[in-house]
Amino acid sequence: MAKVDIGKKIQSENDRVAERNRRRFTEAGVLVLNLISSPGSGKTTLLEATIDRLSGKRTILVIEGDVSTERDIERVRARGAGGVQINTGGGCHLSAKMVAGVLGDLDLESADIVFIENVGNLICPATYDLGEDVRVGLLATTEGDDKPMKYPAIFHEAQLAIVNKIDLLPYLEYDVEKVTTEVGVLNPSCEILTLSALKGEGMKDWIAWIEDRLSRKKG
Amino acid sequence: MAKVDIGKKIQSENDRVAERNRRRFTEAGVLVLNLISSPGSGKTTLLEATIDRLSGKRTILVIEGDVSTERDIERVRARGAGGVQINTGGGCHLSAKMVAGVLGDLDLESADIVFIENVGNLICPATYDLGEDVRVGLLATTEGDDKPMKYPAIFHEAQLAIVNKIDLLPYLEYDVEKVTTEVGVLNPSCEILTLSALKGEGMKDWIAWIEDRLSRKKG
Repeated sequence: MAKVDIGKKIQSENDRVAERNRRRFTEAGVLVLNLISSPGSGKTTLLEATIDRLSGKRTILVIEGDVSTERDIERVRARGAGGVQINTGGGCHLSAKMVAGVLGDLDLESADIVFIENVGNLICPATYDLGEDVRVGLLATTEGDDKPMKYPAIFHEAQLAIVNKIDLLPYLEYDVEKVTTEVGVLNPSCEILTLSALKGEGMKDWIAWIEDRLSRKKG
Repeated sequence: MAKVDIGKKIQSENDRVAERNRRRFTEAGVLVLNLISSPGSGKTTLLEATIDRLSGKRTILVIEGDVSTERDIERVRARGAGGVQINTGGGCHLSAKMVAGVLGDLDLESADIVFIENVGNLICPATYDLGEDVRVGLLATTEGDDKPMKYPAIFHEAQLAIVNKIDLLPYLEYDVEKVTTEVGVLNPSCEILTLSALKGEGMKDWIAWIEDRLSRKKG
């Protein structure tokens, strides 16, 4: 009897749907970013601050992934972005299929950027391609500076790592250089930004990074 | 053809092994706590502070669960506790079988308390019984005060919720009462402690809570 590796089967099915999503995003000419972090690292706050800064210049859509509640989509809608909430009902990550299931509810053609805020989890979302252009791994200074090596998968896959909550550095023992060094060991091509989404420090570099990616995508 | 629910099958196999672990722990007369939280909420720091305070009075063993690295077991060993590291190699939670696999390496008969520090993940570990007496859900003030309703499973299952990092409250917008109210809605019988493992505030209540549980277990 042939042995079936269920994990591999799920992964290749996900990859197929992710490729379909990617073609759809490319047709619509939108830049798509998949944000991954632990719960409470500041993904939604980063989106709020980003929407504020791109308001009037770029049209932003958000796909919010959460186990439960509509809290995050309400927060980004309050800042003027459109979007949709996916509740996984216990599921620990978004899949390409879940994203595909909501694309019909989004006016992709009129958008410039789609942010996908993944379920708060530093492990499971790391290996699920959703069809995004850029995978972003977020860390918060408040989580301690030992995290990259303890949760390596996301940094292997990410094109950008963000260290958020740098406004709290004066009250913490946190070595930013240790973190950036570890990310570099795991993935030398991963870029790194440090910022405070809440207070604004470093946000300019993040916005410039997005604009650069957007211009490359739009050619 | 009979349909097999793989999720249910895994769960019931896990429950069987968890019951076996529980019998083993009870034979040895040890109190076993399963600590669950996001990465960086302070589980290991709480263990360090707990070991320091119970040193000379109670014999503590630690089972450390991590995707990768031996960092956490090194930290608790440095404080004088015995124990063992489980690396899941990508796995997002401990299972009863993983715990069963290391029990032979632990001198349970000479111990009073076994702490199991689960993999840093607020979702997947919540539904895996490991054979523990007490499931503890940790939150950090730095993660924001909207977490219980967004990650309800752990609070449905926990006997105790801990809000850690209260020393940072002066620098955050965090409503402790909102969090304790939400936990109470999810699980009215869940007890709640607020503390700072790093600075010591509230640690006395936590130690008293453990001693109370220990005296009940030992009869």
